Amino acid sequence: MITQNSLTFTTHGRGTTAITGAIREQVRSSGVTTGLCHVFLHHTSASLVLCENADPDVRTDLERYMARLVMDGDPVFEHTAEGPDDMPAHIRTILAGSDLTLPVSKGQCALGTWQGVYLWEHRTAVHQRRITVTVTGE
Amino acid sequence: MITQNSLTFTTHGRGTTAITGAIREQVRSSGVTTGLCHVFLHHTSASLVLCENADPDVRTDLERYMARLVMDGDPVFEHTAEGPDDMPAHIRTILAGSDLTLPVSKGQCALGTWQGVYLWEHRTAVHQRRITVTVTGE
Amino acid sequence: MITQNSLTFTTHGRGTTAITGAIREQVRSSGVTTGLCHVFLHHTSASLVLCENADPDVRTDLERYMARLVMDGDPVFEHTAEGPDDMPAHIRTILAGSDLTLPVSKGQCALGTWQGVYLWEHRTAVHQRRITVTVTGE
Repeated sequence: MITQNSLTFTTHGRGTTAITGAIREQVRSSGVTTGLCHVFLHHTSASLVLCENADPDVRTDLERYMARLVMDGDPVFEHTAEGPDDMPAHIRTILAGSDLTLPVSKGQCALGTWQGVYLWEHRTAVHQRRITVTVTGE
Repeated sequence: MITQNSLTFTTHGRGTTAITGAIREQVRSSGVTTGLCHVFLHHTSASLVLCENADPDVRTDLERYMARLVMDGDPVFEHTAEGPDDMPAHIRTILAGSDLTLPVSKGQCALGTWQGVYLWEHRTAVHQRRITVTVTGE
Repeated sequence: MITQNSLTFTTHGRGTTAITGAIREQVRSSGVTTGLCHVFLHHTSASLVLCENADPDVRTDLERYMARLVMDGDPVFEHTAEGPDDMPAHIRTILAGSDLTLPVSKGQCALGTWQGVYLWEHRTAVHQRRITVTVTGE
């Protein structure tokens, strides 16, 4: 059994958008009882991550940490066509990743209690981001 | 064909626990000959990684490197509810990841010669960590 | 439906090798219309990453950034058996990852417009690197 759908989200500059609910809904409507849910982001300047879902400070701390680890306008970068956040966004994407696979158990997306799925925008401007969710199993 | 089981490990503070044997056993007992083995950690303060499996210095060097990259008690963090290692553990989890997918070939988990699967605890205290292993294929 | 093949690439020291074409060909020849394509690297000193595919400066900036983040010959490392780039290669592998799962849609590998699949060599010397591509679906 396999279902596959694409969803589009509008991000609002750097920071995270919770998409756990949308992923859970894809799993529920797939009819799969036991299997896997793959979530894929079709972009090179944003990430998909599993992050603590209770305290919003975690995501702002994460953003602040990453902004210091990969500095905008770092003179080492030659790829600056779209501005000082262009190359840092590509690096953040590789460090944090852009695809996730989650177990499906008893017809549900089997996340841990504190795990949320987040779309993490790495560019400072508003963007449309597309993901594809594939649910497989029986 | 699909099998899915959850396993729990007790970690002993920061550092890695080799779980390659447990993963290989899940693959063997699944009866799958050709397919995939997905390993998922249900937590936001520990990681699943593939790391060199021969020299224990690799894992201690890795831990030492990471402790410097993401410093405990960094004043940039506001999320400190559970202590100075709380927010660093969430960041390490995102940098190192918490799910792995491995190929299954000829009825075995097809790792490279030097690849081992490790549960990497990011908190300084002892924790119980749950993983779910899903094996699919034919 | 499932197909699985291994491919070997010769890398030329640090830097990226585009393997998008080889992955796309595996998907096409699998006969899978809707499903997933899993790409796995059997090594602990090289990565598989999705990176911007248009401007070669992105990959050289990425390499330059990583060389600064994980310094060769860092005195913190004890695992130096194979030289100053040995332990950094293991750390880069864990930060950037070594397996990718991509959606298959309409019989094709459904990458975003700017996404390319790259084998990223982390050692300074020439190496043979083996990957296994598993395509599943219907």
